[in-house]
Amino acid sequence: MRILVDGMGGDYSPSEIVKGAVMAAPHINETIAILGPEEIINELLAAEGWNGNNIEVINATEVITNDEAPAKAIRRKKDSTIVKAMTMMKEGQGDAFISAGSTGALLSGGLLILGRIKGIKRPAIAAFFPKIGQDDTTLIVDCGANVESKPEYIYQNGIMGSIFVKALKGIDNPEVKLLNVGAEDAKGDDLHKEAFKLLESSSLNFTGNVEGRDVCFGVCDVVATDGFSGNVFLKSSEGIAIAIMKRVKEKMTDGIAAKLGAALSYGKLRELKDEFNYDTEGGAPILGLKGAVLKIHGNSKAPAVYYAIKKAVRYVENDVTGQIEKAVTCHSEL
Amino acid sequence: MRILVDGMGGDYSPSEIVKGAVMAAPHINETIAILGPEEIINELLAAEGWNGNNIEVINATEVITNDEAPAKAIRRKKDSTIVKAMTMMKEGQGDAFISAGSTGALLSGGLLILGRIKGIKRPAIAAFFPKIGQDDTTLIVDCGANVESKPEYIYQNGIMGSIFVKALKGIDNPEVKLLNVGAEDAKGDDLHKEAFKLLESSSLNFTGNVEGRDVCFGVCDVVATDGFSGNVFLKSSEGIAIAIMKRVKEKMTDGIAAKLGAALSYGKLRELKDEFNYDTEGGAPILGLKGAVLKIHGNSKAPAVYYAIKKAVRYVENDVTGQIEKAVTCHSEL
Repeated sequence: MRILVDGMGGDYSPSEIVKGAVMAAPHINETIAILGPEEIINELLAAEGWNGNNIEVINATEVITNDEAPAKAIRRKKDSTIVKAMTMMKEGQGDAFISAGSTGALLSGGLLILGRIKGIKRPAIAAFFPKIGQDDTTLIVDCGANVESKPEYIYQNGIMGSIFVKALKGIDNPEVKLLNVGAEDAKGDDLHKEAFKLLESSSLNFTGNVEGRDVCFGVCDVVATDGFSGNVFLKSSEGIAIAIMKRVKEKMTDGIAAKLGAALSYGKLRELKDEFNYDTEGGAPILGLKGAVLKIHGNSKAPAVYYAIKKAVRYVENDVTGQIEKAVTCHSEL
Repeated sequence: MRILVDGMGGDYSPSEIVKGAVMAAPHINETIAILGPEEIINELLAAEGWNGNNIEVINATEVITNDEAPAKAIRRKKDSTIVKAMTMMKEGQGDAFISAGSTGALLSGGLLILGRIKGIKRPAIAAFFPKIGQDDTTLIVDCGANVESKPEYIYQNGIMGSIFVKALKGIDNPEVKLLNVGAEDAKGDDLHKEAFKLLESSSLNFTGNVEGRDVCFGVCDVVATDGFSGNVFLKSSEGIAIAIMKRVKEKMTDGIAAKLGAALSYGKLRELKDEFNYDTEGGAPILGLKGAVLKIHGNSKAPAVYYAIKKAVRYVENDVTGQIEKAVTCHSEL
C-alpha cells in the first residue's frame, strides 16, 4: 500500500506536512509518498533526521492555490501535487491521498482524473462534528461538494456515510438521520421529503429527521444532507462556537474577581477547547471517488497529518471504496 | 390603535400573558385587547389589581395547539384566539397581533384570513440573531415559513427585512447580505445565484454573500435567505450555543479549583447568558401579511409580552406594512 501525501497544501506546508509524515512512518508498514519539489522535501526530511525506508518523495513542481478556479487549474497544472497524485491513484500507483490543499481542486481533480465510483451520482465531502461532551463525533455528509442537490444524492450520502463510519469507527449499525427543518416525518421541501422516502425504504438504520439544534447533542452517527444545508450547518456552528468561546474568555477576564476565577478554572476551559479540536479525526473524506481521498484542514500541523495517514491506512484496508460500489450497484446499502 | 394579544398561546399562558399586558398598558396610549376565555382572563386581570381602562377582553373559547395541523385547525376552530384575532385584523378592528402560540397556525391564519400584502409572494418569519459581544442583532429573513423557495422570495425577504429594521431600529440604510456557501459573488446553487442577481440589481444596500460562520460577528443588519437554510442556520446556532454554555458550566464545576473559579466569575458568565436572551427584541415578525403579526417564543413570560406590545406599537406607527406594499409594487425597495 502506498499513501500519497500532498507536501504543498495548506498554511504550514511543506515543513509541517513532512514532520507529520516522519511522525507516522515508524507506526505503519505502508509506504508514504510525499509529493512536492524534490529538493525541498528531501532537505526537510534530512532536517528531521529521517533515515527510515518507507518514505518516498515524488517530484511535483507546481501547486494549485485556493484562489485558482479549480477545474481550470486541474487542466493546466499537469505537474501540480494534486494532478500528479490523482493520476497516480488512477494508475494504481497510490491507494490513498491526503491533502491540506484547495478543497475545490481536490474535488475537481477527483472527478476529472480519478473518477466516481460506479453508481455514485456525486461525490460528497464528509466532516466530523463533535457530539459535545461525549468524546465522539457525528459524520455530516455532504458539507458542500454539491450545493445543487437531488433526493438520490442525499440518499447516497447516507449510504456512503454509513459505510464509512462502520468501517473506520467500527460502529455496527450506524444510525442515520436526515437534516431537516423539523423532526416529524413529513417536514421539509420536496427535495428533503423525497430523500426521506428513499432513506426510509433502504436497509440503512435510518431513524428519521434531525433538526439543526439537535445534531451537536449526538443523536446519531451519520447526518445525510444536501451540500448547501450541510455547509450552512457546519459553518454556522463553527462561527457561533468561536464567538461564544471568545466571549467566555472576555467575560472571564473582565474584572478582578472574574480574572482570579479564570486563573483557577483555566485548565478546565482549555480541556473544553480541546473538545473542538478534530485533528485526531484524520481529516474529511471525499466519499464517492474511486479511491481514498482525505482533505485535512488548511491550518493542519504535523499531528493532523499523522492522524490522517493512520486513518488512510484503515480506509484502504477496510476497502470502503469497494463497499460503497457494492452497496450502490447491488442496492444492498449495508 | 388596538393591539390584540393572544391570551392562550405558549407555555405560561394565560397568566404570564395577562401579566405582560398589565405591565405594558400604563406605558402606551393604545388599547390592548386580550383574547381568551373571558372569565379566566378577567379573573387574572383582577388578581393583578388591574383598574386601568386600556385593556379589553375579547371572548375566545378555543385554542389551537402546536400538535394540530395548522390549516385544518384554522378552518375548524372558528372561536380560537388566532382565528378571532386574524378576523379582527382583517376587519380593521385590530392593528397588530401578538401570540406565543403555534407558528404554523399563525402563518396559516395569516395567509387564509388576513392575507398577503399586494405584491408579496410569500410571507416570511424574521428572527433576531445576536451580533455576539456587540449588544445588537441581525435580522434573519426567512427562518422557516417557506422551505420551498424561489429567487424572488429571497429577494423580497431582503426588502421586507430592510424596511423592518429601518423602521424599528432606526437604521438608515440597512446592510443586507445573502446567506450562502461562500463569500464570493458566484457562489451557491441556482436559487441563490439568481437571488444574488435580484438583490444586486435592487436599490437595497446589498453587500454580497455571507457564510454561516460570519453572521454572529455582526457583519450586516439583515440576512436574506430561503426558509430551509434560514431554519438550519438558526437552529444549528441555537443548538451549539446551548451545548457549549452547558459544557462551560460543567467544566467550571469540575474540580475544586474550577469550582472556586466559577464562583468568582459567576456574575460575568451570567451576563454572557443574558446576551442570548432576545426577550427585549419583542418577538419575531411574520413579514408580508396585511398587518403586524408578532410571534413571541412559546416559553415567553410577562417581560417578553411587554416588549412585544411596545414593539407592535412602533410597527404600526411606522406603517411597515404600507411601506412594504409600496416597495414591492413600485419596485422602489427603500
